[in-house]
Amino acid sequence: INSKLPTVGTTIFSVMSKLAQEHNAINLSQGFPDYPTDPKLIALINDAMLAGHNQYAPMVGSAILKEIVAKKMIAHYGAKYNEETEITITAGGTQAIFTAIASVINPGDEVIIFEPAYDCYAPTVKLFGGLVKPFTLHAPDYTIDWEMVKKLFSANTRMIILNSPQNPTGSILSKTDIEALIKLTKDTDVLILSDEVYEHVIFDDAQHESIARYPELRDRSFIIASFGKLLHTTGWKLGYCLAPIKLTSEFRKVHQFNVFSVNTPMQIGIANYLANDQIYRDISLFFQQKRDLFRTLLSETKFKLLPCKGSYFQCVSFAHLTDESDIEFAKRIITEFGVASIPVSAFYTNKTDDKILRFCFAKEQKTLEAAVEKLKKI
Amino acid sequence: INSKLPTVGTTIFSVMSKLAQEHNAINLSQGFPDYPTDPKLIALINDAMLAGHNQYAPMVGSAILKEIVAKKMIAHYGAKYNEETEITITAGGTQAIFTAIASVINPGDEVIIFEPAYDCYAPTVKLFGGLVKPFTLHAPDYTIDWEMVKKLFSANTRMIILNSPQNPTGSILSKTDIEALIKLTKDTDVLILSDEVYEHVIFDDAQHESIARYPELRDRSFIIASFGKLLHTTGWKLGYCLAPIKLTSEFRKVHQFNVFSVNTPMQIGIANYLANDQIYRDISLFFQQKRDLFRTLLSETKFKLLPCKGSYFQCVSFAHLTDESDIEFAKRIITEFGVASIPVSAFYTNKTDDKILRFCFAKEQKTLEAAVEKLKKI
Ligand SMILES: CSCCC(=O)C(=O)O
Ligand SMILES: CSCCC(=O)C(=O)O
Repeated sequence: INSKLPTVGTTIFSVMSKLAQEHNAINLSQGFPDYPTDPKLIALINDAMLAGHNQYAPMVGSAILKEIVAKKMIAHYGAKYNEETEITITAGGTQAIFTAIASVINPGDEVIIFEPAYDCYAPTVKLFGGLVKPFTLHAPDYTIDWEMVKKLFSANTRMIILNSPQNPTGSILSKTDIEALIKLTKDTDVLILSDEVYEHVIFDDAQHESIARYPELRDRSFIIASFGKLLHTTGWKLGYCLAPIKLTSEFRKVHQFNVFSVNTPMQIGIANYLANDQIYRDISLFFQQKRDLFRTLLSETKFKLLPCKGSYFQCVSFAHLTDESDIEFAKRIITEFGVASIPVSAFYTNKTDDKILRFCFAKEQKTLEAAVEKLKKI
Repeated sequence: INSKLPTVGTTIFSVMSKLAQEHNAINLSQGFPDYPTDPKLIALINDAMLAGHNQYAPMVGSAILKEIVAKKMIAHYGAKYNEETEITITAGGTQAIFTAIASVINPGDEVIIFEPAYDCYAPTVKLFGGLVKPFTLHAPDYTIDWEMVKKLFSANTRMIILNSPQNPTGSILSKTDIEALIKLTKDTDVLILSDEVYEHVIFDDAQHESIARYPELRDRSFIIASFGKLLHTTGWKLGYCLAPIKLTSEFRKVHQFNVFSVNTPMQIGIANYLANDQIYRDISLFFQQKRDLFRTLLSETKFKLLPCKGSYFQCVSFAHLTDESDIEFAKRIITEFGVASIPVSAFYTNKTDDKILRFCFAKEQKTLEAAVEKLKKI
């Protein structure tokens, strides 16, 4: 077998979670909540199963869930998406990202990715013969110099992948960023894949600059969202893709042969749960309190805190503490101190090591407190 | 946008189901049960959610479900699959098929597909640059002339796709077929994708010739299975892929970036349900009774019945009744007589029309009776 993805190993998330387990460490590596799911939501999924919603959902998604998404897009971003032709329910954000790339990337197409980046983008682009053009951002602010981005553009540039709020850095795109992007892509046919799975986890009253707000961009954009992040159920694997009809029709051609359709009772149960739109309003504050608590606790450690404007990840710098690589240090913190994190070099194609670790704070207060007690010993 | 799949339209299943709905017809087109799911199974899913199994499952699948699969493979086929390295849980059979093709097919690779064939194989092969080499089978028996298959082999042949019990024809591979296949692939490096999603729906005490039974073949084979077919829950979208370690490791490289992982509470609930292995024993008889009932009922219509050795599909010939194409006739049966079926030409790349319709009999007795009452009027 000649591997089509020869450089791909096991994801860093599996590696660190496994090591955490072996050493009985507190796991702040892989991003997932450790507190219970709302029993009301569980009851609605159960109701959907008992009501007989157990056979294939429509390929594009259940009508009532697409309706909920369409309503949210208007209420939050003033963006009208047609339920029939522009919204597709997916088996999680990752499947939506994979399918979007699959549906438009051809061999030789260049895709600009801002790094550090979530680890599924680059291998998926490569799987379809695309060429990854990484644009490297650095701690502590990870700001984008759009004049430099322009230099990466070529006749083969096919797509730019955005992610705001950003995993792993917790940075967000500003209105200025978006304006620069509009200028840059005007008069080109470059597509945008905007991974907005943390759209509702944004702090200090910042506005989420969804691409959906910008008509100049949304006509060329796939927007990816996640119910797992919104509902604290990362293991349910439901998300969606928003795109104009010409992109959605290509997306669905691949989607129908990739998964065909998505878990029916979960679609119905989630739609019924989200009929109460208070859910959306509560989530930012919920995570902001966790962020603030975690930052306050961490201020008693020797780490330097990076800004965290969104997502449920807090990055810290340890450059002043040791010369070890971030991977060595992250592993040692598991084995010697009992806390798992993710070394941010894992999110760069070229393994840039700015000596930054990422901690997930989507955890119970007592988990965060126990973890920081251990981290204080470093 | 230059479509990557220019010839792909909406699947025949969506087309016929939609038409059925518009005309309030009895829907025997798309293959899914219309009777309730076992409340015991639903209760176990609910228990799993309440017990907190709501975050990411391991990328390869939940350990207890992989264990159940491994045990079944030994009990049913005497085949030992390593849970760590050879079994991967997927978001349904279709996602497993897509991912297997994605992980090994390169541009220019030739893939032999026996037609009529389930409609996801060919477009997925094409999406990865592969070339489909259809081998056309015909009503009423759809038997394979392996000497003729041999003539399709070339230096570029990379994969053969098998499907037994077969959708749409209800035919099955015999031991003689398998022996011919072993001879044909010996001394080649041709891979096999064996779609066995109807493995438990096989009649008249026939033995399912799983590729897993044949060491000469399984070392080069992806085997695809479906919990949806086994548990009468096509909308839950869970399945799995079995393959030797060298293929599984390539499969997982793609799987982890396609869906990452699969619905956690459903994996746990299904594993607990299948701890009772009576489930496997009951299913063939359950469907055999439906098949026998449906065939008896249909014998009072003007259709000629084709053999049905497995799957939950019954094909009928109408060549003696009309000159219409199977698509025209299928549509007219919906609009004039109120019953939806699938025209089998939809399963051929070149739209071969042997004047055959496919009916799904995974339906309540009263549904089948009501449908045949209407079909008698033709
Ligand atoms: C899909 S596993 C990784 C979870 C996650 O989003 C993260 O930790 O970054
Ligand atoms: C995935 S929709 C089609 C269902 C099915 O397996 C069939 O009807 O053949």
